[in-house]
Amino acid sequence: MSRLYTPGPVRLPFDVAAAGALQPLHHRSAEFRLIAEKLFTDLSALHCSSRPVALLSGSGTTGMDAALASTITAGSTVIVVAFGRFGERIITMCRNLGANVLPLTAEWGDVVEPEVIADAVRDNPTATACWLVHSETSTGVAINLRPVLDVIRSIRPDILIGIDAITSLAVHELRADEWDVDIIVSASQKGLMAPPGLSTVWISERAEERLVRTAALTLNIADILRAAKDATFLWTPPVTIIRQLSVACSRIQKEGLENVWQRHSHISDVLRQGLRDRGLLLFGRATSNAVTAVHIAQPREFRETLLREFDILIAGGQGHLASNVVRIGTCGDHTVTDMLDLLWAIDVVLARVGVDS
Amino acid sequence: MSRLYTPGPVRLPFDVAAAGALQPLHHRSAEFRLIAEKLFTDLSALHCSSRPVALLSGSGTTGMDAALASTITAGSTVIVVAFGRFGERIITMCRNLGANVLPLTAEWGDVVEPEVIADAVRDNPTATACWLVHSETSTGVAINLRPVLDVIRSIRPDILIGIDAITSLAVHELRADEWDVDIIVSASQKGLMAPPGLSTVWISERAEERLVRTAALTLNIADILRAAKDATFLWTPPVTIIRQLSVACSRIQKEGLENVWQRHSHISDVLRQGLRDRGLLLFGRATSNAVTAVHIAQPREFRETLLREFDILIAGGQGHLASNVVRIGTCGDHTVTDMLDLLWAIDVVLARVGVDS
Repeated sequence: MSRLYTPGPVRLPFDVAAAGALQPLHHRSAEFRLIAEKLFTDLSALHCSSRPVALLSGSGTTGMDAALASTITAGSTVIVVAFGRFGERIITMCRNLGANVLPLTAEWGDVVEPEVIADAVRDNPTATACWLVHSETSTGVAINLRPVLDVIRSIRPDILIGIDAITSLAVHELRADEWDVDIIVSASQKGLMAPPGLSTVWISERAEERLVRTAALTLNIADILRAAKDATFLWTPPVTIIRQLSVACSRIQKEGLENVWQRHSHISDVLRQGLRDRGLLLFGRATSNAVTAVHIAQPREFRETLLREFDILIAGGQGHLASNVVRIGTCGDHTVTDMLDLLWAIDVVLARVGVDS
Repeated sequence: MSRLYTPGPVRLPFDVAAAGALQPLHHRSAEFRLIAEKLFTDLSALHCSSRPVALLSGSGTTGMDAALASTITAGSTVIVVAFGRFGERIITMCRNLGANVLPLTAEWGDVVEPEVIADAVRDNPTATACWLVHSETSTGVAINLRPVLDVIRSIRPDILIGIDAITSLAVHELRADEWDVDIIVSASQKGLMAPPGLSTVWISERAEERLVRTAALTLNIADILRAAKDATFLWTPPVTIIRQLSVACSRIQKEGLENVWQRHSHISDVLRQGLRDRGLLLFGRATSNAVTAVHIAQPREFRETLLREFDILIAGGQGHLASNVVRIGTCGDHTVTDMLDLLWAIDVVLARVGVDS
C-alpha cells in the first residue's frame, strides 16, 4: 500500500488503523455508548464549541447534502462564494434544492475578496444564507476566514453563515462559537485522520432554530442533532469507523488543537519553500495548509514515477488543472520529516523527468 | 467485546475484521480499482444478476432513501406492504417524498397475504411502484417473496417492484433477474457480514430507465449507478469498509450463495426448535432466517444476564414488543455450533430468571 500524501484519505496513525480490526460493537450497547459520548465531546472541542456535532454516515459531500437540504427552502436566496471545484459544487447543490443562488466566483487559484462578499451581502438583504469554502481542495487556496466572517456578520447579524471545512477542520484555525458561524461541514478522512465514512455537521443555535425537514430521512439534521445530544444514532452508524475516529480525536486532543494547527502551518511552509527551492512554481495563492498545488510540466509522469520508485501517492490536478498541476496533501499526522522524505523523493524524480521536461 | 447475535451489526469473520486495520487505499488508485471491480462483480452475483449494483456510503436506511428518492415523484401513487417497523418506515419515507401511499398493513408478527397485494395492484392501475420488505427485522417474519412477485407481475408487467432486502440478501433466496424485480436495497452489516457503512442498491433495466433526479447529490442513483458500471465512485467512499466487504463477499462466493441460503435456513431451524424445546413461544410467524423473535417474560433481565454471564448480546424487541420479546440475529457466518452455544447459555439464563418469571 502506498504512502498517501493526498488530501484525503490520509495515512492513519498506527493506533487509528489498528482499531479498525476490532469486532463491531452494537450501536445500542453500553460499551459503544461510552465511545460515542467521548467522541461527541471531542468533536465539539475540535470546533471550539460546546455545541453538539451531528455525525452522518458518508463523505463530506453527504454532510454538505444534509446541511444544505436542512437549511435551504426552495426559492430562498443563497450567496455562495466559489473559487474552485468544491465551491462550484455547492452552487450546483443549492440550485438542485431550488435555491436562487448568487454565485461570487474567482478564478481557480485566487480567492474572492472580502469587499466583494460584503457588497453582495449588503445588496441582497433577503439572502438567507452565505456559504464559503474555507480550504479549497481543488486549488490549494484557503480563505482568510475571520475577517470575512466579521464583515458579513456586521452587515447581517442574522444571515446563516455556512462553512465547507472539509479540509480545514483540525488543520486551519476555526472557532465556531467565537467566530459566530452557523454551519460547519467536515469529514473523517482529512484533518481528523480517520478512514472515510463519516461526515460532521456542526450547527449553531441560530441555525438549529431554522432547520427545515428534508425529504430524505438520513439527511435530516434536526433529527440527527437531537440524537447526537443524547450521544446516540438513529440508524446503524459505521461503528468501526466511529471507533477509529474516536482514537484519532483523542490523539488530536492530546497534541492540543492549537498545536495541530501550528504543525500544519509549519509543515506546509516547509513543503512550499522546499518546492520553490527546487524551481517549482506553486499554483495560485497556495495558502491552504491541507493541500499544496504545484505546477508540474508532466504531472502524470511525475506522479507515476513517485509512485513506482518511492511508493508515494500524491493527487493530480482537478478539472482543467489535470494537465499541469499536482496536489500534495498535508492533512493528518504528517511531520516535518514526512515533508523532507517527500522533497528528497521529488529531487530524485525531478532529476529523472526534469522540472520543465 | 461481546459476541453479537444481533440482526446487524454482526460478528465479522476473522479475515474481514483483519482487513479493517489496513491503511486506506486512495479511491482513485489502481490498487483500489482492482478491489472495487472484484467487489462490484461479486455484488451482482449475490443478486443473481449481471447488472451493476450501486454502492452508497450509509446504512440500509440511506439505501432506501436513495432508492425511493430516485424512483418516486411527488404525487405518484405507491403501494407499500408493511408488517413491521421497517415496512412502516417505508410508508413514512414515501410520504416525505410527496407520494400518495396505499399502505397494505398486517399486524406485527403476521404477513400481508398475496391476494390482498394482488387486489391492491389490480385496483390501483395508476400505482407506479410497489414496495415490500422481504425479511422484517422488527418481527422476525419473512414474506414468501416469489409467489407475491409473480402475482404482481402478472397483473402489472410494468409496475416497479422494490424490495427491502436489508436482512435478506445473502440470507434468503432472492434472484433479481429471474424473479423480475426492479429495486433491491441492502446493507453491508447483515448477511454480507462486513461492518456497517455501506448500502447496496440493485436496479433493473426497467427501473433505470425511469430514474428521477434527487435534490441531494449523494442520493442520486442514476449518477451512482453510472459510476458503478465503471467500478468507480463519485465521492470518497468508505475505502476500508469496501475492502472488508470485498473479503466478506469472496467468502460468500467461496461457500456458494445457495449453500449460504441453506445454512441460514438450517441454523434458524435449529435455533427455533431449540427455543421451542425450552418451552419458549416464538413471536408471530417466525419465518425469517435472519432474525428470530421470541417471547420472554422479562426480556431486559434475560438480555442483561446473557450479556453479563456469557458476553452474548442479543437484541431487544422493537416498539410495543420491547416489554415481552427479544430478537436473536442469525445473519452472517454463524454455524450450528454457534446456535448450540447460544441455546446452552439460554438454558443457564432460563434456570436463573425462569421461563415465566
